[in-house]
Amino acid sequence: MDSMKNRRSIRKYKKRDIPSDLLDALLEESFRASTMGNMQLYSVVVTRDEKMKEKLAPAHFNQPMVTSAPVVLTFCADFNRFSLWCRQRKADPGYNNFISFLNAASDALLVTQNFCTLAEEAGLGICYLGTTIYDPENIIRILKLPELVMPVATITVGYPDECPSQPDRLPLRGIVHEETYRDYTPEMIDDIYAYKESLPENKRFVEINHTETLAQIFTDIRYKKSDNEYMSENLLKVIHEQGF
Amino acid sequence: MDSMKNRRSIRKYKKRDIPSDLLDALLEESFRASTMGNMQLYSVVVTRDEKMKEKLAPAHFNQPMVTSAPVVLTFCADFNRFSLWCRQRKADPGYNNFISFLNAASDALLVTQNFCTLAEEAGLGICYLGTTIYDPENIIRILKLPELVMPVATITVGYPDECPSQPDRLPLRGIVHEETYRDYTPEMIDDIYAYKESLPENKRFVEINHTETLAQIFTDIRYKKSDNEYMSENLLKVIHEQGF
Repeated sequence: MDSMKNRRSIRKYKKRDIPSDLLDALLEESFRASTMGNMQLYSVVVTRDEKMKEKLAPAHFNQPMVTSAPVVLTFCADFNRFSLWCRQRKADPGYNNFISFLNAASDALLVTQNFCTLAEEAGLGICYLGTTIYDPENIIRILKLPELVMPVATITVGYPDECPSQPDRLPLRGIVHEETYRDYTPEMIDDIYAYKESLPENKRFVEINHTETLAQIFTDIRYKKSDNEYMSENLLKVIHEQGF
Repeated sequence: MDSMKNRRSIRKYKKRDIPSDLLDALLEESFRASTMGNMQLYSVVVTRDEKMKEKLAPAHFNQPMVTSAPVVLTFCADFNRFSLWCRQRKADPGYNNFISFLNAASDALLVTQNFCTLAEEAGLGICYLGTTIYDPENIIRILKLPELVMPVATITVGYPDECPSQPDRLPLRGIVHEETYRDYTPEMIDDIYAYKESLPENKRFVEINHTETLAQIFTDIRYKKSDNEYMSENLLKVIHEQGF
């Protein structure tokens, strides 16, 4: 699939809108993804309204794609609809627990990735916002998500207005294990990360950030232990508050 | 994409093996999926060995695909490799927490779905095993997964030896929300589930199981509250034991 082989995240979009029937067709096809017991434990909230995008932006750390993309999609783990159906059919749903959250989150993420593949195949560009689980409370409030609904992924979508260079990936041998996981020796780590560390843009990145190594940019600036610990506690709290 | 539109899970496979170079090409292409900060927080363990499949089977409740498929893939959330790199580069990794697990699990699930799409496009059939997070301890032991590595999805893969009917899906209007989540009224629930409940195979399913409604098959037989509660506690324990 050339569209997957050549893909890159797109953060700049043309003003052009996405026709509703195209969006609906892509979403409907994405729902063909495997789903736990064919329960389809997900919902998608479509944001097109400018004011709604402005409200959502801070929850995504004001990444500019949220307001500049014609469409923002929030994919949610959803056991609410299924539980309502159960209650309406004399069945007692038992999905207010952690494994049900992770089952529904898995369902939602498979659909998210299907949607991205289909959108790119149709000539659209997407950007995946990892911020969705950093500040879920605000997203829940803005999108009015009820109990047993938890946002797990956000995608901005539009017609590409840029063609950035394709990011590097680790070599296959660094990721795939035969039969059992063979833990990494220091030599293997050097080998796996050598190409990434050799890239001029990453060397420049180290210079600009005044760190000694590329890894320190991740640990000391981008994904810090203290932030992770704070967000972990908050995330578990919100998952619990949403009834799981 | 016709292969996605027409897809169904495949549980019976031809004896024919999957060439290593084809599997490698599909895996490598699947790694083009979006990934948190380009950290690629996943590993894949490939099981081809008959004895390893036999060991894995009980952890997947002895679903026959585990031993009959030529290839079983276990996709893992992996912060081990990245943390080893950090330590080797004078950086102090702070990823032994819950949000890091969910970030890595998201990365792994996006790759899982990409792999499924590519495999089906190449004429292979797949089945997604939801059992991976039901008994993760045994999978961890058998595949020798170290700390900060957690299995999140298992896929059986092979050349299809069946063409089952395509399962139903809920109507788009039951899943997609415009601007905000509009919670479901009883009438909407009736409407959304009407087609599923009307299917002869589902009516037969209710008869065979001696339940009053289809929903009761889910709540009382397939996905029971007591099982979910037991597995939730175990899953949280194992995530913690794996160092997250």
